[in-house]
Amino acid sequence: MAFQSLRISRFVISVRSPIRQCHHRARALVSQMFQPTGALPKGAKQSEIVCKSHKLMLEHGLIRQSSPGIYHLLPLALRALEKLIRVIDEEMQTIGGQKLNMPCLTTAELWKETDRWTTTGSELFKLKDRHDVEYCLGPTHEEAVTHLVASQGHISQRQLPIKLYQITRKFRDEIRPRFGLLRGREFYMKDMYTFDIDEERAMETYHSVCEAYTRFLQRLGLNFVKVVADTGVIGGSMSHEFHLPADTGEDVLMFCLKCGHGANKETIDSEDAHCPNCGPSTKLESRQGIEVGHAFYLGTKYSKVFNVDYLDKNNKSRLTQMGCYGLGVTRILAAAIEVLSTDDEVRWPKLIAPYQIIIIPPKKGSKEERGQQIAEELYDSIVGKIPSLKNEILLDDRDHMTIGRRMKDAKTLGYPFVVVVGKKALQSDRLFEMCSVNTGVTSFESQDALLEIFSGIQTV
Amino acid sequence: MAFQSLRISRFVISVRSPIRQCHHRARALVSQMFQPTGALPKGAKQSEIVCKSHKLMLEHGLIRQSSPGIYHLLPLALRALEKLIRVIDEEMQTIGGQKLNMPCLTTAELWKETDRWTTTGSELFKLKDRHDVEYCLGPTHEEAVTHLVASQGHISQRQLPIKLYQITRKFRDEIRPRFGLLRGREFYMKDMYTFDIDEERAMETYHSVCEAYTRFLQRLGLNFVKVVADTGVIGGSMSHEFHLPADTGEDVLMFCLKCGHGANKETIDSEDAHCPNCGPSTKLESRQGIEVGHAFYLGTKYSKVFNVDYLDKNNKSRLTQMGCYGLGVTRILAAAIEVLSTDDEVRWPKLIAPYQIIIIPPKKGSKEERGQQIAEELYDSIVGKIPSLKNEILLDDRDHMTIGRRMKDAKTLGYPFVVVVGKKALQSDRLFEMCSVNTGVTSFESQDALLEIFSGIQTV
Repeated sequence: MAFQSLRISRFVISVRSPIRQCHHRARALVSQMFQPTGALPKGAKQSEIVCKSHKLMLEHGLIRQSSPGIYHLLPLALRALEKLIRVIDEEMQTIGGQKLNMPCLTTAELWKETDRWTTTGSELFKLKDRHDVEYCLGPTHEEAVTHLVASQGHISQRQLPIKLYQITRKFRDEIRPRFGLLRGREFYMKDMYTFDIDEERAMETYHSVCEAYTRFLQRLGLNFVKVVADTGVIGGSMSHEFHLPADTGEDVLMFCLKCGHGANKETIDSEDAHCPNCGPSTKLESRQGIEVGHAFYLGTKYSKVFNVDYLDKNNKSRLTQMGCYGLGVTRILAAAIEVLSTDDEVRWPKLIAPYQIIIIPPKKGSKEERGQQIAEELYDSIVGKIPSLKNEILLDDRDHMTIGRRMKDAKTLGYPFVVVVGKKALQSDRLFEMCSVNTGVTSFESQDALLEIFSGIQTV
Repeated sequence: MAFQSLRISRFVISVRSPIRQCHHRARALVSQMFQPTGALPKGAKQSEIVCKSHKLMLEHGLIRQSSPGIYHLLPLALRALEKLIRVIDEEMQTIGGQKLNMPCLTTAELWKETDRWTTTGSELFKLKDRHDVEYCLGPTHEEAVTHLVASQGHISQRQLPIKLYQITRKFRDEIRPRFGLLRGREFYMKDMYTFDIDEERAMETYHSVCEAYTRFLQRLGLNFVKVVADTGVIGGSMSHEFHLPADTGEDVLMFCLKCGHGANKETIDSEDAHCPNCGPSTKLESRQGIEVGHAFYLGTKYSKVFNVDYLDKNNKSRLTQMGCYGLGVTRILAAAIEVLSTDDEVRWPKLIAPYQIIIIPPKKGSKEERGQQIAEELYDSIVGKIPSLKNEILLDDRDHMTIGRRMKDAKTLGYPFVVVVGKKALQSDRLFEMCSVNTGVTSFESQDALLEIFSGIQTV
């Protein structure tokens, strides 16, 4: 869009006065959905699509590749992503997180102060502006946030802990992006940065964030493991990762089957390592995992560079103790699909499914054609009686297609509840065929029974 | 955050099983708010801060400059921005808009196909990846979206119109960024792209989007004008802009005071132009405006480059007719503050104020100290009885400060309702002092009366 250049003038009037207008939203229709399916995008070679979530998301119109490791998030995937973000927001705010938004463009100057401009290497996307000032596209924001917090001068002890987080796009020039959203070059990450008065408090914060991650993954119904991790390029003295166990996971995790201790293999010196708790006779077993979250205790690594300090009781300046905490947001979306789906059918964590319910009216020209109106009435009735479902219902109005074909599509896309308006809906007792896609159970239900079932649907 | 590199392993187990846990959110406290105020950020010169919204937003901890034209959005501003985005989502979805997300990194290849790689000039942020492939940071996405829609081959006529939109960060290397969020280099924009079967339908779509913009600005309570505009670098044959009249506006708009016809001065040849409707005797008058929205009828300018076509009844391929429609989202936030605020006090469109209500308990150590508990009870009571306000109330727990000082802060920040728990709240009839900040009216109200008033607050 073009925004125009500077002009100067004399006076201003208002032409319109504000009125609050009513408006209502039409029903959500499958025929209107932008969901290109089938053909693979240009540049995507079949041989490179080696994991389930990547294949399912491409084939069923959830994502499209824009360039290697960079994807368009299409409407259904974006709906799920926005729900995922709301769940994360709730959990971060429960532990006192304050949401902000830092820019993608971060000056080289800041990254040079911590030496990461050079040590991070070629994974940084670097660029210059028209004045030849150097920037990178932030893959993570320790420098930016520490500099931001430092900009207010001494922090009052009363203000601590500070827990800032954002959910924004991050950039990493992966040498070999792969597995769709699991290892992309432009992706959404939730990154939280915390500032505490001392190590003890920082450890409390560390545990509270790990607990929030646990609650978050539990709410999604995902099995996960938490393991000791390497601190890598971020630095600091303690680190844990959260993984979804999966054959396609890129990390190897080592576990003690006796005590449950787990660690990323990177942290273990020798191949046949023993459990630190259970002694040398207890070998660790390995499993693969997809990393979805990471916690780092940073200490003063960054706060000393930018001098983020507070004055203690004796008016003495003391550095804050920092932590940083990431969740790979787009990665979690894909990883959840990876671990929950079958080879042919997408499954979502129920809470974040793009729509909770899909209603399939009869085919046009069929004997049951008048059921189309019943389907619309059912739609409006659910919306009217269960306000939380107002944006959660799809009507598959592609009435040139058979019910069976649309039923197959609905199951493939993994909407938790599929309701078919068939022959029995035209009888005097008006029964709807309902399939609970996650359990596979199909039953015939009255409208009242449907409303009762649907009123129990959790939404976010 | 560091995501680890590839490892391969043999088997996977699940260690934890999912449980749905309850959790609740604590009260929102002013003491916990990250809101650095006062000192100007490094690099921001007082002399460069020449407009009200820029000054107010910096001084009151709503934004911080990261580099020229690039800002951190701090928690209060981000809350307002997220509400603004929800209002836009509602209006776009009312007209059948489907939300997606296109990447920031757009390949040079696409921009070269439309020649805009060179014609857009130095406003494009350009960069290369590790394989020397050229990209720009998308300032707008005509190429990307047209290429995306083309990627599915012939479109079925049944699918049209397609109305795709996104609300994402855009980038423009302005030669002289200024006025804070009004002219930044990294900003949020809502951009919608539409595809229709013919010119007539495309015009219907054009009008429906303009109507949605009208409803959107009306819901925010903003006076605005719609004027004929230049098509600029975007191209196409018809264009309108939406402006907020403001002395600091960078555009000059020419109006006929008789018939209300308006046009951007850029579209008018001579200085003393006449109204096209009212004849040569009627001169146009000029006013300044801040451009907040823009509509373009594009025709086939982009659809012919990428061949976005459909098959008509006679199975003949026909190009789709496109439109594109922008709203400067961060700009609207700042522009609203610009036109609604006084020199010293921030005012928001009520619907998107960061919080709707702030409660101020008595000072610690004062005679009214036991009112602190009453304040907390009031908070919980509002949240309990009016669920839509659950995230809309702040408690100003900075109880080392006088009520007067906190009252001043609350008014300065423009929360629509300020409730003071003072002496009268301790009397048997328990009255609260309530100030409606937008009207300036103060009154004493019982708890029931407050709940009645607050139940009428519109939230998004």
